[in-house]
Amino acid sequence: MHNHKDIIRRLKTAEGHLRGVQRMVDDDAYCIDVIRQIQAVQASLNKLSSKILTEHLNSCLITAVRGEDPSERERVLKEISEVFDATQKI
Amino acid sequence: MHNHKDIIRRLKTAEGHLRGVQRMVDDDAYCIDVIRQIQAVQASLNKLSSKILTEHLNSCLITAVRGEDPSERERVLKEISEVFDATQKI
Amino acid sequence: MHNHKDIIRRLKTAEGHLRGVQRMVDDDAYCIDVIRQIQAVQASLNKLSSKILTEHLNSCLITAVRGEDPSERERVLKEISEVFDATQKI
Amino acid sequence: MHNHKDIIRRLKTAEGHLRGVQRMVDDDAYCIDVIRQIQAVQASLNKLSSKILTEHLNSCLITAVRGEDPSERERVLKEISEVFDATQKI
Repeated sequence: MHNHKDIIRRLKTAEGHLRGVQRMVDDDAYCIDVIRQIQAVQASLNKLSSKILTEHLNSCLITAVRGEDPSERERVLKEISEVFDATQKI
Repeated sequence: MHNHKDIIRRLKTAEGHLRGVQRMVDDDAYCIDVIRQIQAVQASLNKLSSKILTEHLNSCLITAVRGEDPSERERVLKEISEVFDATQKI
Repeated sequence: MHNHKDIIRRLKTAEGHLRGVQRMVDDDAYCIDVIRQIQAVQASLNKLSSKILTEHLNSCLITAVRGEDPSERERVLKEISEVFDATQKI
Repeated sequence: MHNHKDIIRRLKTAEGHLRGVQRMVDDDAYCIDVIRQIQAVQASLNKLSSKILTEHLNSCLITAVRGEDPSERERVLKEISEVFDATQKI
């Protein structure tokens, strides 16, 4: 992946956010506020997944689709369908 | 799209399902049962979207990525990212 | 449910929208445009589920929680958790 | 919140999982595998939110609905609707 740095930075932010949620729970924060913070982490992870997928489409996918190996191409296309399916279920 | 028939059939099923939900509401069904039926329609629409996307990847996407027009290729890849984004928000 | 009329109206709109999607498929519309319209139907069904849940909370739930029957109360609270779970998976 | 320990434990697990994803990115793991791990973290956060909501329904909500303060009751019910809405959009 390109943009390693940006992806790592976003993962670290989400990780720090989750540590903040732990502190909230320790401090007996209101349940709904805890849920909202968890949802905020999830929204940021959604954005990150989108970002990584976009990169994937513009690199690995192009290589596979233009390549000579039909089974490799099928695999790459199937993975995208699977990731799309999984996203619907989260 | 290939599989017109299958896609139309699934859309008709979802449409009939929604008419059934209207009858439930008219018959004063329990709110939670109505919500569950609406969620069932959404799950079937999710499957349908996945199906159409898979077909799209295996036809239009392959054509665009192998084609000579870089702006067409970019457009097709961008659309897939957008559809992925939108799915996360439904 | 109160607001029968409004709920029925929204269900009819979603049903009409799905018929429109069938016409798109018959007219060989672009796959991505079809997916986007399906996603629009789902977004409107999401709003409808929220609306019905809000009503449910303000009527059945209040009655059950204030009522004398602990098993009825448990049932109603459990259903809300279940509907919340199901929403996460759609 | 009751079950502090269990909630903290799950948050720590998710945090550790995200650190594992960072190592994958550092090791140049395949994009799709990274996305799948991020989706796994999100699925575990979904379960955690459900758990916290269930607890909330069985404690704060019952207190508010049985209490004498109508504005407090409205607030608590409104929050549940809002959290439900937000979940649909993640």
